Amino acid sequence: MEKILCGVDIGGTKLSVALMTTSGKIIDKCIDCDHAEKTECGLTDQVKANIIKLLHRNNFKESDLLGIGIGCTGHIRFKDGIIITISNLKGYKCYPLRDAIQSSFKIPVILDNDANAQALGEFKFGAGKGFNDMIFLTISTGIGAGIIINKRLHRGMTGTAGEFGHTIIEPDSDLICTCGNKGCLMAVACGMALPHLFQKKMKEGKVSKLRLPSDFDYTRIDGKLLKQGLDIDDPVSKEIILDSGRYVGIGIYNIFQALNPSLIVLGGGLLSWGDFYLGQIRKTFYELARDMMYDPIEIKVSDIGPDAGVIGAASLPIELC
Amino acid sequence: MEKILCGVDIGGTKLSVALMTTSGKIIDKCIDCDHAEKTECGLTDQVKANIIKLLHRNNFKESDLLGIGIGCTGHIRFKDGIIITISNLKGYKCYPLRDAIQSSFKIPVILDNDANAQALGEFKFGAGKGFNDMIFLTISTGIGAGIIINKRLHRGMTGTAGEFGHTIIEPDSDLICTCGNKGCLMAVACGMALPHLFQKKMKEGKVSKLRLPSDFDYTRIDGKLLKQGLDIDDPVSKEIILDSGRYVGIGIYNIFQALNPSLIVLGGGLLSWGDFYLGQIRKTFYELARDMMYDPIEIKVSDIGPDAGVIGAASLPIELC
Repeated sequence: MEKILCGVDIGGTKLSVALMTTSGKIIDKCIDCDHAEKTECGLTDQVKANIIKLLHRNNFKESDLLGIGIGCTGHIRFKDGIIITISNLKGYKCYPLRDAIQSSFKIPVILDNDANAQALGEFKFGAGKGFNDMIFLTISTGIGAGIIINKRLHRGMTGTAGEFGHTIIEPDSDLICTCGNKGCLMAVACGMALPHLFQKKMKEGKVSKLRLPSDFDYTRIDGKLLKQGLDIDDPVSKEIILDSGRYVGIGIYNIFQALNPSLIVLGGGLLSWGDFYLGQIRKTFYELARDMMYDPIEIKVSDIGPDAGVIGAASLPIELC
Repeated sequence: MEKILCGVDIGGTKLSVALMTTSGKIIDKCIDCDHAEKTECGLTDQVKANIIKLLHRNNFKESDLLGIGIGCTGHIRFKDGIIITISNLKGYKCYPLRDAIQSSFKIPVILDNDANAQALGEFKFGAGKGFNDMIFLTISTGIGAGIIINKRLHRGMTGTAGEFGHTIIEPDSDLICTCGNKGCLMAVACGMALPHLFQKKMKEGKVSKLRLPSDFDYTRIDGKLLKQGLDIDDPVSKEIILDSGRYVGIGIYNIFQALNPSLIVLGGGLLSWGDFYLGQIRKTFYELARDMMYDPIEIKVSDIGPDAGVIGAASLPIELC
């Protein structure tokens, strides 16, 4: 019988575990939303139990698995399989999650950053199929990314390569990133910047059609609200979306100059802004790249769907296949 | 007898050809400064003649060579061995230099960008020895770079990867790069920015100890002049050097976040500013990277010496060895 894969996607709000065929089809999955309340050991046990539950209810044995891939939010020391730190879950300072899971299984367990895992999933089963190099960017509250070079993930020394979100593109910006630095791409361009950008437009005297109450808490401004603004042709929402698109376009241009990839794939929540957003990203990129782009670079949207995280995680054991 | 290598370094002002051992020792070399006046075919003939001259006068035959490596200024389409464009030499639009040289030799001829070649030379025989990944930056009038990943050059789709000098770090800067874009790293940080930066300080009312005549042509401000300023403790020269160091530090930080390499090697004319400059680069980098640097990254100075260009070119045929 053909072997199958197991993927575990550990996010800030959701823990997903799935069984998947080697051609990228989900066989079965389970999703928990209570993992953030648990200790490191509690989460480890929950992951193990979910894997075993899925194997049992689908009549598989551990030996039917090629391996278990774990994509986890936060910074991962790849070679050692250690979570260095996670900003959106309590604890997890230097926690050896890979070995903690591995202790219950004989098949290989691989732990990587969730953006790397998603990049690999997209490369194997999504928009990246057939390419040799690819950069994957996921744009939501922050910006995560994964780099594929010669069909493999480039992880760098520690395993934290691909942090394009923390590259600085406005050194003297008044927008400060969660990392503490000024003018990181993610601080000026994506979800975390939206409340500030909206308030700035209000202070400039711009009028929004969103008709927010006078006591509105601007920290609640997010991509979904601006999508509503876009849908009702709100000029303030549209300006902010265009500003974000310009910065992401500059970010992609910088990636183009640095790595000269043939494909850039975009995913993440802010892509729900659709062609209005994507058009601005592409326009900014092509205006900057102009005659320095000697071969066409493709900018595609992720097409792997809502299971991208767990599909990516499950593809980690077959990275080198 | 052990095989040897031949390197050809084509710059804007100098054409160097050398024979080298496989351990990176120059056997003999010749340098011409009249190549910029020649046609594409004229330069091709000059390169061929210099290679043959060096072989003859050192009693080598073509079959003693492992290969000929050419490092050339400008944009190179690596796979096709074509010069796409050179900004500091006339002509050379889509000129197939590799095949033009290859037509006279049986041993393999490899053509690459000069910064890539230098990066490889530094990796094989200089500061990069013993590392797995390395980013090489050469900072002079512009900024060139080469990326080594898993002991090989990463060239990207066309072959133009490593153009960190054209990554944008001040999108609304009033400094325009030779490429036409605003706020490229090289436009704000290196040789081409110096005249503008000096004039700006003058307009701000700063007083330079360099005592330039009132009719001084500020476009003549270069790294050498600021080195004189540094040596006499000129506050204006020192401020500009610190500003440049800050930008290069940010550029290196961005490379760290993007690629997480274990080593960054710096070369090029502006390094003559010494520890005052290097200290500012390192300080800026470490202040930004702080607790996000989980493994130590080394920032070293190129130690391959004045023959770096031709040593790099000669190392191209043994890239995969």
